[in-house]
Amino acid sequence: MEPGQVGEKDIDQQRRRFALEAMELLERTGEEVTRARLAAELNIARARMEAVFPEEGDLLEAITAEWFAPKIAVMDEVMGSGLPPRRKMYEFFARRFALLRKNFQDDPATFRLYVEMGERYFEYAQSYVDLGDHYLCELIAEAQADGHLAGMDVDYARSVINQMVLSYIQPYLIAMIGDRLSEDKLAHIVDAIFDGLDAKDGGARGTGKLHAA
Amino acid sequence: MEPGQVGEKDIDQQRRRFALEAMELLERTGEEVTRARLAAELNIARARMEAVFPEEGDLLEAITAEWFAPKIAVMDEVMGSGLPPRRKMYEFFARRFALLRKNFQDDPATFRLYVEMGERYFEYAQSYVDLGDHYLCELIAEAQADGHLAGMDVDYARSVINQMVLSYIQPYLIAMIGDRLSEDKLAHIVDAIFDGLDAKDGGARGTGKLHAA
Repeated sequence: MEPGQVGEKDIDQQRRRFALEAMELLERTGEEVTRARLAAELNIARARMEAVFPEEGDLLEAITAEWFAPKIAVMDEVMGSGLPPRRKMYEFFARRFALLRKNFQDDPATFRLYVEMGERYFEYAQSYVDLGDHYLCELIAEAQADGHLAGMDVDYARSVINQMVLSYIQPYLIAMIGDRLSEDKLAHIVDAIFDGLDAKDGGARGTGKLHAA
Repeated sequence: MEPGQVGEKDIDQQRRRFALEAMELLERTGEEVTRARLAAELNIARARMEAVFPEEGDLLEAITAEWFAPKIAVMDEVMGSGLPPRRKMYEFFARRFALLRKNFQDDPATFRLYVEMGERYFEYAQSYVDLGDHYLCELIAEAQADGHLAGMDVDYARSVINQMVLSYIQPYLIAMIGDRLSEDKLAHIVDAIFDGLDAKDGGARGTGKLHAA
């Protein structure tokens, strides 16, 4: 192994370790954590902290990565499961929902702080949201191969489906209306996606003739 | 007319007028309005303001009523329209969505302030939310009379449907993801509700046999 690679690995390990320490501190204090605060807490020099996180944003990015890691793990697991599309889409949303609900119930105050941070520093979460969307597009293609979501543009279907299940994947909503959410209701929504969502105009908008023209 | 009734009417008119003045002030300053601040602005005595709004919450309640009035007007209009259930449910959500989107686009900062106030003083908004739910239950009963939402408990269907269209009726979400929302997507969601949502287990949850047992 090249010396350079060892250094990279060391830095990566330190980033993870410091991010986990920052999350512990954040949970304990109920406040956002800066590099300076974390260096003081760990009793290490600012210079060492800055070698690991050159910018304040690098710490936030590392925290975001740790926060999303278990959600990505369940998505990966579901995507590799070989379940039929309908079951797979349900598990794709349901397992993340169960995880988020548990995070919330374990520590509502810390959960709300992460939600606020997520709103403020959305740029760091973007790649995880994009990964979820990428997987959802795969699920849509699998559903279409089975005759569901007929004729729908994949990206359009992704957007509509994300809206239909938003309460189950958006941390803010889980904190706010979590007591009204359930796996049973989510299953009914996923069944409605598979049995009632397609490209044709079903008549809700009342413009069928215009669209057909 | 009894003198007492005249007084009631006068107070009602003053409540409305002061609430509208408070909303103008709020829009201009970008801050919440108290009775003291409003009395100073209108150059009237605190005692007169307190005769109209005995408690601080009475001002908030009057502002809430004014904010919801146009949304209730469109709901009333749709409920009395005689449209078939699928069209009616679409219009029920779409017209409120169009109104909220316009409110947001006209003045995003003020819209966000109302959203924050709505979260803080949710008690005042509760009766309006309840009215919307009451109407939605009527719509569900009409849809069921036409063979849709088969076998579903009305209150359960109300909860699931509110979740499916949440992005289109929740002001916070309209402010946050408004650019991804459209009448066309909402129409597809309502069509999925009418064509794919019912009491039976469609298989998403993968517990069909357990439920059937």
